[in-house]
Amino acid sequence: MTLESLSPCKDNHYLTSNRIDHFGFKNDKTFNQRYLIADQHWRKEGGSILFYTGNEGDIIWFCNNTGFMWDVAEELKAMLVFAEHRYYGQSLPFGADSFRDSRHLNFLTSEQALADFAELIKHLKRTIPGAENQPVIALGGSYGGMLAAWFRMKYPHIVVGALAASAPIWQFEDIVPCGVFMKIVTTDFKRSGPNCSESIQSSWDAINRLTRNGTGMDWLSEALHLCTPLKNAQDVQHLKDWISETWVNLAMVDYPYESNFLQPLPAWPIKVVCQYLKNPNLSDKKLLQNIFQALNVYYNYSGQARCLNMSETSTSSLGSLGWSYQACTEIVMPFCTNGIDDMFEPQPWDLKTFSDECFKQWGVKPRPSWITSMYGGKNISSHTNIIFSNGDLDPWSGGGVTKNITNTLVAIIIPEGAHHLDLRANSAFDPMTVLLARSLEVKYMKQWIRDFYASPRKKH
Amino acid sequence: MTLESLSPCKDNHYLTSNRIDHFGFKNDKTFNQRYLIADQHWRKEGGSILFYTGNEGDIIWFCNNTGFMWDVAEELKAMLVFAEHRYYGQSLPFGADSFRDSRHLNFLTSEQALADFAELIKHLKRTIPGAENQPVIALGGSYGGMLAAWFRMKYPHIVVGALAASAPIWQFEDIVPCGVFMKIVTTDFKRSGPNCSESIQSSWDAINRLTRNGTGMDWLSEALHLCTPLKNAQDVQHLKDWISETWVNLAMVDYPYESNFLQPLPAWPIKVVCQYLKNPNLSDKKLLQNIFQALNVYYNYSGQARCLNMSETSTSSLGSLGWSYQACTEIVMPFCTNGIDDMFEPQPWDLKTFSDECFKQWGVKPRPSWITSMYGGKNISSHTNIIFSNGDLDPWSGGGVTKNITNTLVAIIIPEGAHHLDLRANSAFDPMTVLLARSLEVKYMKQWIRDFYASPRKKH
Repeated sequence: MTLESLSPCKDNHYLTSNRIDHFGFKNDKTFNQRYLIADQHWRKEGGSILFYTGNEGDIIWFCNNTGFMWDVAEELKAMLVFAEHRYYGQSLPFGADSFRDSRHLNFLTSEQALADFAELIKHLKRTIPGAENQPVIALGGSYGGMLAAWFRMKYPHIVVGALAASAPIWQFEDIVPCGVFMKIVTTDFKRSGPNCSESIQSSWDAINRLTRNGTGMDWLSEALHLCTPLKNAQDVQHLKDWISETWVNLAMVDYPYESNFLQPLPAWPIKVVCQYLKNPNLSDKKLLQNIFQALNVYYNYSGQARCLNMSETSTSSLGSLGWSYQACTEIVMPFCTNGIDDMFEPQPWDLKTFSDECFKQWGVKPRPSWITSMYGGKNISSHTNIIFSNGDLDPWSGGGVTKNITNTLVAIIIPEGAHHLDLRANSAFDPMTVLLARSLEVKYMKQWIRDFYASPRKKH
Repeated sequence: MTLESLSPCKDNHYLTSNRIDHFGFKNDKTFNQRYLIADQHWRKEGGSILFYTGNEGDIIWFCNNTGFMWDVAEELKAMLVFAEHRYYGQSLPFGADSFRDSRHLNFLTSEQALADFAELIKHLKRTIPGAENQPVIALGGSYGGMLAAWFRMKYPHIVVGALAASAPIWQFEDIVPCGVFMKIVTTDFKRSGPNCSESIQSSWDAINRLTRNGTGMDWLSEALHLCTPLKNAQDVQHLKDWISETWVNLAMVDYPYESNFLQPLPAWPIKVVCQYLKNPNLSDKKLLQNIFQALNVYYNYSGQARCLNMSETSTSSLGSLGWSYQACTEIVMPFCTNGIDDMFEPQPWDLKTFSDECFKQWGVKPRPSWITSMYGGKNISSHTNIIFSNGDLDPWSGGGVTKNITNTLVAIIIPEGAHHLDLRANSAFDPMTVLLARSLEVKYMKQWIRDFYASPRKKH
């Protein structure tokens, strides 16, 4: 049975009304929040509710990429709920105007999203007979994983625990070094083929040398099969950013089997990419022809692409507009490279420039220390029942919780695991490490469910 | 040494900048939040910070009525901080316009106030050398006690524990019966003199009978020495509400010594009041002449008042305007009477009417279930280090936590204690019960401080 046949991610969706502003009373308008429900394995007796805390994209896409929940539903007698995050997918508070200006975007925050989830769960418990006295567990990956962890921290009366997969809750301020992310990306390429990271490292200078003049730009545009040719220095910077992001994305989705998360890709895609990048000491042109072959793995695995489009790096199911706003307000993650610990051109973290660009684009200024004020940064030891899982291939693990904090705030490391591999459906190609991680996760979740049923329960 | 000489509540105040809206990014204006600091007993080595989570009034007034913090400062080597709640005292986000309309009032919520406190503590830790690595304990009484408890629940990374005195965190929705509050008021009068509650109970009908016509209204206005004579049925209803509130206030401030919290009053003021209310079977006029004597205790202990003013029931240091807005939005507390379990005229809780009045006055509608969604109602057992103290004379104890929930969420009952008696300065007239309560509170606080210093500390 394939996931497709199991999951009703495609059409089983419902709408409810949720407040646009939970934290003020002037605006009492509501919006339609989408969520998906699957109850084929749910039991009213002793069952549970697994609640996916939707992140920056269409919820159907997350639903289709979170096979783990479907795989454990029967064992946990669980109802599955996938909640779409406001301002993404079909959950647009102001419809087509939602991204128009800072006034319309004002309600796009993690705090509002968590309040949406709280109210949605209350609504489900009120309206689904049998659901009221069941434990709810939050699950999420990436930003959704941060939301799952934060949801348990802020609403422990609503969720008994959280599985926060690949959740970089410490990628803020100076909690971790800003270079750790790109260092992990680099390590992934280093480990996937001889001279692979060196070849990429060499490519930046090669690009710089080649694009000193128009002829070089033309040549490179053709060699890389760019849909839009390079015209000036700004385009060249854009090219380098786009290529960097491609390597980052490959590090995130370096799964052990053919997959289609950000793009359709072969198994262990970095290994495939690195087959083209064995020699860093070629001429600039030869090196960049190899870079093209490498990029082609990511952008043209299907073989259908006629040119490479620099305006896209991943699925359009991710809401890049909303995420850009969130990164410019609360979710301020400092990144940097130094070209020594990583294979990229050196680029320090520059809050001032970042802030200016945010103000230009959205009319807002980032508040880099707010997330730490709100959610505690490293001081989270008084909370309980959160699993932080991290694949060691995943660059986001650099800002993640990778060591146990207490007995009930635990870290699970998944060697050979890319970005929330554990949340994906079981596969014959899964490494043993992720099978172990998943069984440990289920063990904890069962414990939380048992604890819930063993304790006296209160109505409110 | 008197409290006056010890405390610099009067003029030692500072201002800082805090965001008007912590939960959105469109409005990045800031306001001046007032807070008071006393550090004469503070020690940089092994010290602590006691943080009063200011409630609905001028912070200087709370400071002057929270002698407990001054009394324990030396023992805990504590810096004392009193933070003023936004929209009260001098902490007005929009100055004189702060209460103009629902747009200006939009940022008056408990969530914003807690975020103010979090940012203020971060500011103090950043700017006061030696403060950074010290444990902070939240303290508050009444709504300030709710804030102290909620602050520990939502920001456990910022405060190691909370003393929530007389904090009715369960006076919401149907968590406790709506009649419990007035039942306790009634019990206080019943216990304070023979036939006292019966006399009050009889007084309502007496008023109703006497005010059927203009002559009766005139007589009553004179008998009660009202500053503004009664003119119609609406005034009569106002009179009864005002008298009821007086009995409620007396129940709150039934302290064992002369005090000046809501009004200057003798020791055990209800006993004094009840001396005038020994016979419920008098003629209407005689009964109401006695009611006047009773009211006179509350409104004219100084003997200076020339008439009784129905537009005031307590100190003007409380911000009744702001509180009226908060009660119309988040802080929706259902109250009711039935005339059987209590000494008042029956009045059911009517959300619809309440909501309509709120909309008329403020242009907002109450959200009665939000506080429970946000702060958990009865499901708070996963939190730690909160003391809930309640005097058994205090009507607010009806919605308070009066039984231990866990080892670290503990209730302290103070027999013979009125509204947060434990937070008041030591007095020779204190009953033994409150001395025991305070020593237990200090024991817990010392334990939190020890635990803090014994644990590895994180920067963020």
